Amino acid sequence: MRHVYLNNAATTWPKPPEVSDAVYKFMTLAGANASRGSASERDLRSLDILFTARERAAKMFGGYEKAAPQYVTLTQNVTHSMNVVLKGFLKEGMRVLTTSVEHNSVIRPLRELEARGVHVGIMQCSLRGFLAPETLEEALRERADLVVMTHCSNVCGSVQPIEEAAHICAKRGVPLVLDCAQTAGILEINAGALGVAALCFTGHKGLLGPQGTGGIVWKPEFAEECAPLLEGGTGSLSHEETQPSLMPDKFEAGTQNLPGVAGLDAAFEYIEKRTAAAIAEKENELGRRLEEGLLSIEGMRLTGPLYDEAPRLPVYSFNIDGIDNGLLARDLSERYGVEGRPGLHCSPLAHKTLGTFPQGALRLSPGCFNTKEEIDYTVDAIKELAKNR
Amino acid sequence: MRHVYLNNAATTWPKPPEVSDAVYKFMTLAGANASRGSASERDLRSLDILFTARERAAKMFGGYEKAAPQYVTLTQNVTHSMNVVLKGFLKEGMRVLTTSVEHNSVIRPLRELEARGVHVGIMQCSLRGFLAPETLEEALRERADLVVMTHCSNVCGSVQPIEEAAHICAKRGVPLVLDCAQTAGILEINAGALGVAALCFTGHKGLLGPQGTGGIVWKPEFAEECAPLLEGGTGSLSHEETQPSLMPDKFEAGTQNLPGVAGLDAAFEYIEKRTAAAIAEKENELGRRLEEGLLSIEGMRLTGPLYDEAPRLPVYSFNIDGIDNGLLARDLSERYGVEGRPGLHCSPLAHKTLGTFPQGALRLSPGCFNTKEEIDYTVDAIKELAKNR
Repeated sequence: MRHVYLNNAATTWPKPPEVSDAVYKFMTLAGANASRGSASERDLRSLDILFTARERAAKMFGGYEKAAPQYVTLTQNVTHSMNVVLKGFLKEGMRVLTTSVEHNSVIRPLRELEARGVHVGIMQCSLRGFLAPETLEEALRERADLVVMTHCSNVCGSVQPIEEAAHICAKRGVPLVLDCAQTAGILEINAGALGVAALCFTGHKGLLGPQGTGGIVWKPEFAEECAPLLEGGTGSLSHEETQPSLMPDKFEAGTQNLPGVAGLDAAFEYIEKRTAAAIAEKENELGRRLEEGLLSIEGMRLTGPLYDEAPRLPVYSFNIDGIDNGLLARDLSERYGVEGRPGLHCSPLAHKTLGTFPQGALRLSPGCFNTKEEIDYTVDAIKELAKNR
Repeated sequence: MRHVYLNNAATTWPKPPEVSDAVYKFMTLAGANASRGSASERDLRSLDILFTARERAAKMFGGYEKAAPQYVTLTQNVTHSMNVVLKGFLKEGMRVLTTSVEHNSVIRPLRELEARGVHVGIMQCSLRGFLAPETLEEALRERADLVVMTHCSNVCGSVQPIEEAAHICAKRGVPLVLDCAQTAGILEINAGALGVAALCFTGHKGLLGPQGTGGIVWKPEFAEECAPLLEGGTGSLSHEETQPSLMPDKFEAGTQNLPGVAGLDAAFEYIEKRTAAAIAEKENELGRRLEEGLLSIEGMRLTGPLYDEAPRLPVYSFNIDGIDNGLLARDLSERYGVEGRPGLHCSPLAHKTLGTFPQGALRLSPGCFNTKEEIDYTVDAIKELAKNR
């Protein structure tokens, strides 16, 4: 049976060979810990990988001048990044605003903070998954301490107007935190120029790196205001019994996922060479083809915008009248070898916004290694399944 | 130049080839996310690796019957594990006891909790790095809510009397949390039989797995009492905006370090085959040889017990009269290719206890892939350096 992977919004697959090679090489040739040895050549190579990965992240996401790379925190995933930022900044009595299309990596920490006395305001997005700048302006008439929002919906692919959002937040002096889980490595972004307080990313989606990697690109002043989430050994200031406040150690306690970071570093390098713009072009080409194909299917209920309507990435969630999306996913996988993801995508609020709660939807998300033929094959497969329902 | 790696207490090196192979195979052949797809064969393989790793951890550390493997939490490292347990359990007004030889992965979270109103009591260990059971009995005359202690000092190798400690804690009904960073994979331990509330381990030391892995083996009732540290998507109960309370999802938000877990799983398998007992025997043989060699050096000031005096593992920290331990480490590394670790080993309190604060000590820690010849070569190298100082 043919095999078509269309679940790149969950994790990209395959990874460039350079990435797995870098992980393997690190494990078999370098392998030392960092800042926890006698500065041998291997120790320094480990430190070097951490340094280069930070530097590449700062470069890719437009880290703040003079601040990069020490204002890049490496984490286990974007959920970890979000928890560090939200819990590090928000205190009882503060007010935080977010949107109604967020992933649970934002909503669940916020609900926990709400239980501790933080006020959480949800800004309603449109049925197509967009936050209107006026909605943000309106919400900011009342005092707010933080705005946190996704750059692109992991359900329907809508790309938020973050430039306008950043401008509005800056006018009000409210820090803006971005969840770039779906956009890092695909959409160009300049955190420094936009004045973003913290840009959170994951390594294993658009960046094409290994699972177990991610990070935060900080605005220095904002990093100073946040408290660490984890304390422990840092290989630095070892005479102190409290967490150091110097960056990047402040937010990085314990031994790093060094093989993963070696892979992430190689992934950054891969994207630098191929360029994010070329990757986006390829993905959007596949996305338009998928969109066209899906629209030709009878009973199709697509969430999110069309390419010609508004900015989007090729993340498509849909239902077909009369077919359960879970059964459709199973049949597509078992009978045609097409992998997607049914259900709620860890985003109940987004599905409520898009009108697909509680049943969810089937999500198909092409990546930069898919082909046109795979898209056509998939559309044909869905057509057959829809016909024979 | 010859190369001798004696920094296994920081991270073991090399890893068994099976471990790097498993990571590479996962990345190139499996690579899907877990619980975030359409239950394709690859999705299930990812889930399977998480399940097997949990099962092996529960088996190796004596997880609680009926509870394992879902009461094994996979984390990024032991620091992460410690933060989850300590912050999940301790609340304002509670009293926690720990020892004076702990690593900063325990001390730093406790100092942070102290600032939030938790009472932290430090039980003084002996100059050789041991907690006397009477000291624990004495400390427990006053009400305590938790005891947290290391199984083995990362500075001087002293192995604590955890059976007695567990017995004393059980008598008083106080939960006991163990930091097994230095012992997991080497010393056999049965958390269930001892009634340990949470056993924290790291994957990249004695377990011979990749950096970026670790975990917690929970006593079920204790896990129920702890709150999560991180909230986010779990690929389960996606309709809920709050973190699920079911295990293992409760403490595992966001995409796991799946390549790392694949490596950890292979490492568990390697140790099951070779047996922890055989590894310990080999390491202790090397340790005794190193001990004898070090004692033959003039001006040697060894911390910790001798093998014939009390239980220990081969983690040796020492100073030589008139030589700075940092310079000795540098010369050993640059001139003889021997890698150790000077300084304070992220354990200021332990060095204070052992009388080596603030200068620290040079630590040499053989692992199961070192040879007798390497130990002899190292001792000779130190002798030469000491003679020519």
